[in-house]
Amino acid sequence: MSRSGSHSHRVRRWCLIAAVVAVWVQQVEGVWPLPQQLHQSADRDCLSPQRFSFTYGRDSAAQTGCSVLDAAFKRYFSIIFPDFTTLSGLLILSNDVVLMFVVADMLSVSEGQAVLRSVSVWGALRGVTSCLLSLLFFYFINKTEIVDFPRFAFRGLLLDTSRHYLPLYAILKTLDAMAYSKLNVFHWHIVDDPSFPYQSRTFPDLSNKGAFHPFTHIYTQSDVIRVIEHARMRGIRVVPEFDSPGHTQSWGKGQPGLLTPCYKGSVPSGSFGPVDPTVDTTYKFMESLLKEVKFVFPDSYVHLGGDEVSFACWQSNPNVRKFMEKMGFGKDFTKLESFYMESIMNMTAALNKTSIVWQDVFDYHERIPQDTVLEIWKGAKYQTELSRMTQAGHRVLLSAPWYINHISYGQDWRNSYAVQPQNFSGTDEQKKLVIGGEVAMWGEYVDATNLSPRLWPRACAAAERLWSNEEKTLNADLAFPRLKEFRCELLRYWKYVCNYSL
Amino acid sequence: MSRSGSHSHRVRRWCLIAAVVAVWVQQVEGVWPLPQQLHQSADRDCLSPQRFSFTYGRDSAAQTGCSVLDAAFKRYFSIIFPDFTTLSGLLILSNDVVLMFVVADMLSVSEGQAVLRSVSVWGALRGVTSCLLSLLFFYFINKTEIVDFPRFAFRGLLLDTSRHYLPLYAILKTLDAMAYSKLNVFHWHIVDDPSFPYQSRTFPDLSNKGAFHPFTHIYTQSDVIRVIEHARMRGIRVVPEFDSPGHTQSWGKGQPGLLTPCYKGSVPSGSFGPVDPTVDTTYKFMESLLKEVKFVFPDSYVHLGGDEVSFACWQSNPNVRKFMEKMGFGKDFTKLESFYMESIMNMTAALNKTSIVWQDVFDYHERIPQDTVLEIWKGAKYQTELSRMTQAGHRVLLSAPWYINHISYGQDWRNSYAVQPQNFSGTDEQKKLVIGGEVAMWGEYVDATNLSPRLWPRACAAAERLWSNEEKTLNADLAFPRLKEFRCELLRYWKYVCNYSL
Repeated sequence: MSRSGSHSHRVRRWCLIAAVVAVWVQQVEGVWPLPQQLHQSADRDCLSPQRFSFTYGRDSAAQTGCSVLDAAFKRYFSIIFPDFTTLSGLLILSNDVVLMFVVADMLSVSEGQAVLRSVSVWGALRGVTSCLLSLLFFYFINKTEIVDFPRFAFRGLLLDTSRHYLPLYAILKTLDAMAYSKLNVFHWHIVDDPSFPYQSRTFPDLSNKGAFHPFTHIYTQSDVIRVIEHARMRGIRVVPEFDSPGHTQSWGKGQPGLLTPCYKGSVPSGSFGPVDPTVDTTYKFMESLLKEVKFVFPDSYVHLGGDEVSFACWQSNPNVRKFMEKMGFGKDFTKLESFYMESIMNMTAALNKTSIVWQDVFDYHERIPQDTVLEIWKGAKYQTELSRMTQAGHRVLLSAPWYINHISYGQDWRNSYAVQPQNFSGTDEQKKLVIGGEVAMWGEYVDATNLSPRLWPRACAAAERLWSNEEKTLNADLAFPRLKEFRCELLRYWKYVCNYSL
Repeated sequence: MSRSGSHSHRVRRWCLIAAVVAVWVQQVEGVWPLPQQLHQSADRDCLSPQRFSFTYGRDSAAQTGCSVLDAAFKRYFSIIFPDFTTLSGLLILSNDVVLMFVVADMLSVSEGQAVLRSVSVWGALRGVTSCLLSLLFFYFINKTEIVDFPRFAFRGLLLDTSRHYLPLYAILKTLDAMAYSKLNVFHWHIVDDPSFPYQSRTFPDLSNKGAFHPFTHIYTQSDVIRVIEHARMRGIRVVPEFDSPGHTQSWGKGQPGLLTPCYKGSVPSGSFGPVDPTVDTTYKFMESLLKEVKFVFPDSYVHLGGDEVSFACWQSNPNVRKFMEKMGFGKDFTKLESFYMESIMNMTAALNKTSIVWQDVFDYHERIPQDTVLEIWKGAKYQTELSRMTQAGHRVLLSAPWYINHISYGQDWRNSYAVQPQNFSGTDEQKKLVIGGEVAMWGEYVDATNLSPRLWPRACAAAERLWSNEEKTLNADLAFPRLKEFRCELLRYWKYVCNYSL
């Protein structure tokens, strides 16, 4: 599978995924998120590993050699027939029951065959997931027709690897579950105040001095490549976040002069505030870092942060005050923040990347580049924010109601499920500017010991909201048995497929 | 180690544990729960596996051959020197640094030696835990003196294996962490409405028909023996709960005639209520079951439940109403419940076991056998309940404020930590009747996938409250760094010691 073609073109193609699947599935209850259309007949057939194979359709644009689909076939075969693959380690290709993939614009369904049609490899990949979920361990299958496509193109999940370090296996396991739930963007909040685990090739001191440990608690270049490739094979994009000018305490350790020295009266206090936006060296550093980020992370998006900047330190610093005066910002430090963010958003655009920023940047500064994506994280009144941002013509991501690191007792997935991302006052055009949303698992109280049980199946609620038809999925009580079944399938999947050699 | 001697005698001896330890420990921060007295000097020595051994004192009543201590020495040695034991698999016994155990009434401390003195094997066992926690991975040790004993004799943890089945390894892992936190009673809420996983030798149909699965989701006799032995080696008692007359839906599947048939008008509705307290067969069954329980579970306590009995079904049943009339209970079904509970409490006493029951039994029926232990589970006004129960002369266990299956965001261990079990209106004699408490992890939303991260380190808060001096441990902020360190040690312990072949 080639990764060529412009990024924005690929993004649009993702929205057009339309997979038509006619396959015998045993239990509709296990399909999550709910497909757009699903019809099941009472016809039954049985399934055996000797009589089952995956084949590319004769007219399919994708054929053997398409690494993403070849790998997916192998992966899913071993879920359907775990004992068989354990025993023989072989795929038996015969033609009794064939799951045929046609990546083209034609459809053919014939008896004894299951045909999946998709306009893209990624759609085919998600189609395999839908079909095979329900085949797990069940050797009886019912004839079923599925038409499916996602409601939103951007279905993200944020992991925070700065507040607690997450070992590689925890990230890979998360990516597996994301693919299973049809989440397609891994928002890697890789660095923040507490630690800088990203091992930069340009600035190795950032992790040498800013990580919790310079050898064991870092992501090397090859770790990052592994994450990106693991994600790509599962149809998941990796969007890194290098959040500035706030949330950068750990950056300062390995990059002297980057952060603003705070003052107590007329002398430096010894502590540091946000990135210093008044000196040239800051912008030179950020440009070098962003160039590296562009090189390492192939995705078209990069998240630039811009949230929660405290102004107290800037205000205490005489050089910053002088700069404010020179620029005519008066006492309004939001103008200084905007000045900084505008500079790095322009840098990012020059690197041919699309910026995502937290809502603060919009709240402080309405004239931001039009193609910048805004992400809403503040819980209160997010509907108003959706209205305002889309009215200004910006594409928007909704995350505020999906901060699922905030746990509570019982079935709190229902809160996530009740979210209606397009239920705000605005025109149809405005509604279309909501390109999706993100589940966030911030790391204050999360590390490898509790990540999975906090994330899953709770993240599935948002995954379904972002994929499925809202009208058909409003009732959480109806969804519950499906979710229960899906959770068990996820556990089986982890058990049979996830063997990471780390 | 012999298990002979009367059970109640052993219980009393547990209260008298007084361990005097003079050992060089590196970091006081890692000791949890906080010892009663702890003095650390600046003197330092270093530690190597070749120069370290455990030895029984010359005058010690316990000597090589005491299975509990021999096994503990081996276990803890492999935590202190994980690489060493991995490489050689041997304990090197030489005399440079000796941790000497004196299970007797004498004390001797000499240079270069660490001496632990305890009046019982169990005290010595907990002493080893205290001392060695802080030695983990640190080859420098400071001279430290510890005097320690528990505040309460009964420091329990409840696991619920009925709402979700917990595989054996999850229970054993919990027992390890309990020992590490000095919790000493595993309250095994083994059966309940949803499933009956206990495989009874007398009534095999109870699990054949009442377990989630008759082969995979049960505890066989050898599983139970393994749990009890694993617990014993760590100084933990196993108190099983066979909760009746309510919470018994799963019992009915394998024991027809046991539950009360509910009526709709004048005909049976097909559903069943609590155990039928009006027929002789019920009491014969309960007596046989309790005889088996006495045989299988050696502990002196058995928990008989008695909580949350719904009266609607009893009320609907004409035979029950007739029985009520005959007994002169009027319309007061609490009298019927009391009648039933009194019968099985007497049965239990005749088997030479001490009953524990939930507070409902006391609330309905104040004249219960004096040596019955009452357990408080209702959250509201537990202080009033403590007053009333102890005024009536009963021994009491407090669990209500420690239902830690109820999770919330952030550091909710602080709520558990703030509990003051003896802060109620009553005389000193009444206060002494509080024999301890229990952390409860009910299973509605808990199975093997999330048990450990929900339990630990949250359960440690109650563990310290039940062990340590309240005056010295009121400030949660001061405790926090110690708890953080303890959590890491617990994770190391699990990593290096917990290899269960299952």
